[in-house]
Amino acid sequence: MSSHNAFYGQSGGVTSVINASAAGVIQTARKYPDTINKVLVGEDGILGALTENLIDSSLESDADIEALKHTPSGAFGSCRYKLKSFDEHRVEYERLIDVFKAHDIRYFFYNGGGDSQDTAYKVSQLSVTMGYPITCIGIPKTIDNDLPFTDCSPGFASVAKYVAVSILESSMDVASMCSTSTKVFVMEVMGRHAGWIAAAAGLARDERELGPDIILFPEIAFNQSAFLEKVDTTVKSKGFCIVVVSEGAKKPDGQFLSDSGIRDAFGHAQLGGVAPVVTDMVKQAYGYKCHWANCDYLQRAARHIASGTDVEHAYALGKAAVELAVNGQNAVMPTIVRTSDQPYQWEIGQVALADVANIEDMMPANYISEDGFSITDACKTYLQPLIEGENYPPYKNGLPTYVKLQKNKVQPKCAEWTPK
Amino acid sequence: MSSHNAFYGQSGGVTSVINASAAGVIQTARKYPDTINKVLVGEDGILGALTENLIDSSLESDADIEALKHTPSGAFGSCRYKLKSFDEHRVEYERLIDVFKAHDIRYFFYNGGGDSQDTAYKVSQLSVTMGYPITCIGIPKTIDNDLPFTDCSPGFASVAKYVAVSILESSMDVASMCSTSTKVFVMEVMGRHAGWIAAAAGLARDERELGPDIILFPEIAFNQSAFLEKVDTTVKSKGFCIVVVSEGAKKPDGQFLSDSGIRDAFGHAQLGGVAPVVTDMVKQAYGYKCHWANCDYLQRAARHIASGTDVEHAYALGKAAVELAVNGQNAVMPTIVRTSDQPYQWEIGQVALADVANIEDMMPANYISEDGFSITDACKTYLQPLIEGENYPPYKNGLPTYVKLQKNKVQPKCAEWTPK
Repeated sequence: MSSHNAFYGQSGGVTSVINASAAGVIQTARKYPDTINKVLVGEDGILGALTENLIDSSLESDADIEALKHTPSGAFGSCRYKLKSFDEHRVEYERLIDVFKAHDIRYFFYNGGGDSQDTAYKVSQLSVTMGYPITCIGIPKTIDNDLPFTDCSPGFASVAKYVAVSILESSMDVASMCSTSTKVFVMEVMGRHAGWIAAAAGLARDERELGPDIILFPEIAFNQSAFLEKVDTTVKSKGFCIVVVSEGAKKPDGQFLSDSGIRDAFGHAQLGGVAPVVTDMVKQAYGYKCHWANCDYLQRAARHIASGTDVEHAYALGKAAVELAVNGQNAVMPTIVRTSDQPYQWEIGQVALADVANIEDMMPANYISEDGFSITDACKTYLQPLIEGENYPPYKNGLPTYVKLQKNKVQPKCAEWTPK
Repeated sequence: MSSHNAFYGQSGGVTSVINASAAGVIQTARKYPDTINKVLVGEDGILGALTENLIDSSLESDADIEALKHTPSGAFGSCRYKLKSFDEHRVEYERLIDVFKAHDIRYFFYNGGGDSQDTAYKVSQLSVTMGYPITCIGIPKTIDNDLPFTDCSPGFASVAKYVAVSILESSMDVASMCSTSTKVFVMEVMGRHAGWIAAAAGLARDERELGPDIILFPEIAFNQSAFLEKVDTTVKSKGFCIVVVSEGAKKPDGQFLSDSGIRDAFGHAQLGGVAPVVTDMVKQAYGYKCHWANCDYLQRAARHIASGTDVEHAYALGKAAVELAVNGQNAVMPTIVRTSDQPYQWEIGQVALADVANIEDMMPANYISEDGFSITDACKTYLQPLIEGENYPPYKNGLPTYVKLQKNKVQPKCAEWTPK
């Protein structure tokens, strides 16, 4: 069996552990030199393939590749770029084949969420539609935890841990000062379509009544009067109220709570900012002193408080992707299969990319309490093992030592090309 | 020498390490039973003394007191309550003496910032003005780092570490996606009057050009055109721009940038929300895709990423306070004295409470760069040792195990009393 190069790309919103998957891919590929020659990494994901901006990972030291395991963000750059269908944009696929041929790329590993698995699936069809022999494996990644067929997706569990730790700590802060200071604290978290991240805050809730008193999920239409009444009742009974709100929380008419009516250049309502909206409602209704936080990118970049389980998953899936390819599998995505809740046990499974693409896995209805404001025990049973384990990066001068790669570019061989 | 009880109180905004000072006080007092009988802790600081809500710390286990070292927030409750002057509100001082007499309290340890040291100073005057023999020691604490005479104040260094780590991580996130996604990221931090916290973000700035490109300090009048120009230049040269803005950033007329004109029930402009204001300016001017975060209480509660140096300082100052009292000192506050920048060395000093009260220590002018947007090397030399060291709490089930004390109340002996 002759050896060919592999392409690896990071796609979509980055996470604190996507580089652990990269380490899994690169370290494992280095173990199969008879099959995989070099791993060439796209700068900014698929865009790097299209524009022939390829990074030669073989020139990175073993130590630097190892350090990817504790480095957040996308070390090779990521992109939000979705391939159009073959019929719509054949020229793009032809370009990919040109670049793949020029660099002897016969393996394609794509690391991302739903849209990215769609890209991986489309690339896998090159062998069918255009006769180019390529082995294509998706690697799951999304903080939104909405990829189907996998028990969870790398990136989510670390956000879950960040959110649970942060709301535990800030609720203790509020509890200790509520007699003369802030009575209501609102923390906004990501999750435009699914409430997984907001739900994770519920893990901080314990018998001490710390953590969130109210969670506002995107899945539950916002009921302003029920919400305000619960805030007031909670403040009156325990002295303070902690609210976690998903950026995707919606009014009964389906409009985002945060939607001010302003659209960005592309006509999209840009989210981020539901916390002040909710806080203002409380202040208007009751005059309570309120504070609010918006975690934004901090939550998905927070490698300093990553979940140990998540780091293990991310690495294992990168490793499994290469092993699947080496074993002759194609057009599949390795998955996390939970075999036991307690003790938590999991193994690697796989699913066809054709089945994964463009499906969003929503929270089951039985994970949200009847009043719509908290999570159920079933949800806790699912979420709890995911935030287990601490996996701290090394520090120097008080800051984590996150690696910066050399990123040596492969000499281009094709004509210049600009995505349209 | 006969033994008497001591009062300890936590005051003002809580921090991730104020309980380490509490541990220092209580553990040290337990070593001097011939001088200090019990440490009675005010629930919610001085309010606990006034309302005779006293917690008997002698009933807390050694293990729980030890666990205070890694527990954020105010374990005994804190308050925002400033004693009026003796002439204005004599009845309040008389009440304090009644409670102190009833519970044989002859030592008063008060843990807080500028206002709280003012309270400590006023209480110390009881022996002069009202003939009640009390030994009064202040213990510094403030995330704002604006207490004079001490090299730094516990609480600040951990916020500094949180802010530096968070902006390092989020700037890496933005850097890896800027080609097709967010170009400008704005992170809001605390610091209404002094820019110490915003400055700490500058520690994340390195030769890789990560960390903040622009810091907006309360000390520097906001220059909108210079700011926007720098944002645009930065985006054009490196693809993205990272902004850290202090909640206290002000317009040239002295008005807070965040001030929407809305006042709370007490007529105060409530802060929190300058990040969206600044972000909107950038969007209006250039249409760049922007994101913003507001750290709010997360930054001061984040014991999970506390500075090891800060934890040591906090404990040492609590310990020193008791030792000063035992050694016959009165009306003083122990301080941190820096004896060497590199290697970082420090020792405990002391200052008279009369000198500390109500002075705010601002950032020296030579700590801010000439263009007003970054910190100088002198500032880095000052700040860097403060964020050194990691001091992780223990974890269980994926979350830190923060202690909840028993908080057994001492039987009241005085008439009921409500603060006016």
